[in-house]
Order: sequence, then C-alpha cells, then structure tokens
Amino acid sequence: MTDGAEAPPSATEWPVELRGVTETVVTTIGPNDLWNVAALGVHAPEDGGAATATTWGNTRTRRNFHREGGGYVQFATDPVVFADATLSIREEPDPVLEAADAWAQVEATHVDTDETENGTRRQHWELRPVESDVVEEAPRTINRGFNAVVEATVAASRLDVPAYDTETLRERLRYFESVVESAGSVREREAMARVREHADGDW
Amino acid sequence: MTDGAEAPPSATEWPVELRGVTETVVTTIGPNDLWNVAALGVHAPEDGGAATATTWGNTRTRRNFHREGGGYVQFATDPVVFADATLSIREEPDPVLEAADAWAQVEATHVDTDETENGTRRQHWELRPVESDVVEEAPRTINRGFNAVVEATVAASRLDVPAYDTETLRERLRYFESVVESAGSVREREAMARVREHADGDW
Repeated sequence: MTDGAEAPPSATEWPVELRGVTETVVTTIGPNDLWNVAALGVHAPEDGGAATATTWGNTRTRRNFHREGGGYVQFATDPVVFADATLSIREEPDPVLEAADAWAQVEATHVDTDETENGTRRQHWELRPVESDVVEEAPRTINRGFNAVVEATVAASRLDVPAYDTETLRERLRYFESVVESAGSVREREAMARVREHADGDW
Repeated sequence: MTDGAEAPPSATEWPVELRGVTETVVTTIGPNDLWNVAALGVHAPEDGGAATATTWGNTRTRRNFHREGGGYVQFATDPVVFADATLSIREEPDPVLEAADAWAQVEATHVDTDETENGTRRQHWELRPVESDVVEEAPRTINRGFNAVVEATVAASRLDVPAYDTETLRERLRYFESVVESAGSVREREAMARVREHADGDW
C-alpha cells in the first residue's frame, strides 16, 4: 500500500488475543524473493483502531513493508527461533515458519508520525490482518527460562546503542543467563548460547 | 501419602507439556478446610521419573502437602492471580481457580533430600497427577510485560532474604516496572501495583 492511501478495515481477525505489546516474528519478502525473518512488537488496537508496530532504523522489515505493503506476523514461542529472528539475518523460501502457533498475513500502512531518537529513525505502522490461521493451541504455561531468553535478546540488541549503559546491560544479561540455567530447558540453553554468540560473549 | 511409602505411577498425564521449570499456582487444603493458593515451580520429569518441586521454608504448601499428600497444580497466566499467589495469603473454598487454563490433581511424595540454605529448609517433592483437565487452549503468545510481572514477584520475594543484595534487587524491580509500563496491559499494571504494595514500594 502506498503511503497516504486510505487504509481499509481488516478483512479478518487476529488469530490470538492481543494485549499490551505482543512479541511476534514477522516475515517480509525482500528484493531477492526470500522471506526475511525478524522480530516485531505488535501493540494491541486501542479504541477500535488498528494494531500498530514500530520499526527501528533502516531495517529489512521497514524496507520490505514500504515496498510490498505488508508481510506475515507469526506467533512463535520456540526460544531459538525467537532469538534468531531478533539477532541474526535469517531468510526463508516460505512466509510461514514451522514454529508458528498462529499467523496473520497483514497489510502494513505507514502512518506519518516518524520520530528520531538517538540517531535512529522510528517509523510507525498500522497492521491489518487480511488472512490468518491458528496452527496449534495449548494451555498457556510460564517458563522463566524462556522469558529470560526474550529479555536477553532485548538487552543484547542494545549493547551497541550508546544511549544504554553497557555495564547495566551486562549485569542484566548475566542475570538472565542464570535464570535460563536454573529454569530453562535444553532449547532455552541453546537460544541463550546464540545470544551470547551474537553479543561476542560480551558480559 | 506417608513419607517413605512406595510411590505409585501417575494415574494420568500432565495436561500441558512440561519443560525446564514451569511456574504454576498450587492449591492445598488447610486445617481450616480452605484451599491455600501459592506459587510452585514444577520441574519437568527426567529419565522417566516424576515431575518434582521444592518447597522453601515452613510454608502452608509444605504443611498441607505433608498432611494431605497432595493438592491441585494449575496453569494460570493471569498476572494478578500469579502475583497474588506468589506474594500474598489467599484462600478459596474450591481447589480449581477460575483463572486456570489447565489443572492436575497431584499426589505429592516427600523425597528424602532436604537441604538447608541460608537458614531456609528446602524440601523436595515428587508430583504425580491423578486427575487432570484442560479448560482453555490458545496459540501461545509472548508479552514482556507479563514476563516482567513474574520476574518482579521473584525479586520482591527476595527483598527480605539476607543472601540477596537489596540494591541489585531494587534495580531489577525498577527495570521490570518499566517493562510493564511499556509492554503490559492494564492487567499487568494492576499486578505490578500489587507487587509494589507487597514490597512496601521499596525500590
């Protein structure tokens, strides 16, 4: 969709209950015809509006949203998939990952409220699902090790951002690593090893 | 079940996939015939054995496990319910909470490997489900605000434990509160307010 075009209503519902910010994995098709896999925080709709998301800097997701007008938002809770989406470049031939418990093909509309913070240009998007599916359902459970992987990816991605205090981030990473050790499964441990690798073991 | 009696095999399966440590809410019936609601970390079975859990100190859960031989382990992800279970005394007339997505009635067998750490007596238990049910299923989603509530309950419950550095815990609580502000829903904010109340706003 071209910037400024009037946004249509969503053609379908989100396949999950969105509340606050839901951390998702988004695939967007690039100029090489491969689907780029990245993390995307989806803000629940407010007051009958659309769900929204923010891209930080000149990422592949942002460029692909501009060029293609959307992508596939997926709800995946495999810790390794999540860590890779956040911290590395991953490209796939198909848009929907095997790890997805649910997904929504979305139209992404750029809304004109860009901000620049610490030299990073943030762009805001409205996301409207046009097709969606639920692949797997289960009772929800809590694993602190998994949660710690998510927080570690956030901390690790900030290590190079001057606005954040590096020693505070490292202290946090050490804490989250200890939580993974005590409460994670083998899958969380593998994810944490990826985070450590990405951060050059910098904590 | 009396300590030392031979443990029977589980009569049924766990209603969720256990991996690493799954944070649950446990209800156990007390001498007043009310069900005490508390948090319990359930360790996934290893090598064909039973799931296990640890009680820390002379808690109601420990006393009720000894007297009644079990309770109801529930998988609930409402942040307020979780915070209350962790930090306050809550008693209910019925064993299964409305917030439970799934539950298992368990037999708890005390296994003879007690340890004392920093003056707190830890007792270890094997948990075997005898009846279970799935109440609600959904695709799994990630909310950092919810995760931050869970971590905040852990940090808050350590504020009075001399072995932990208070200022480190407070720094962590401030961080988790900021995550709830940015990524949580109204329910996570209410839960965090309970945590702050429990900790006397001590951060």
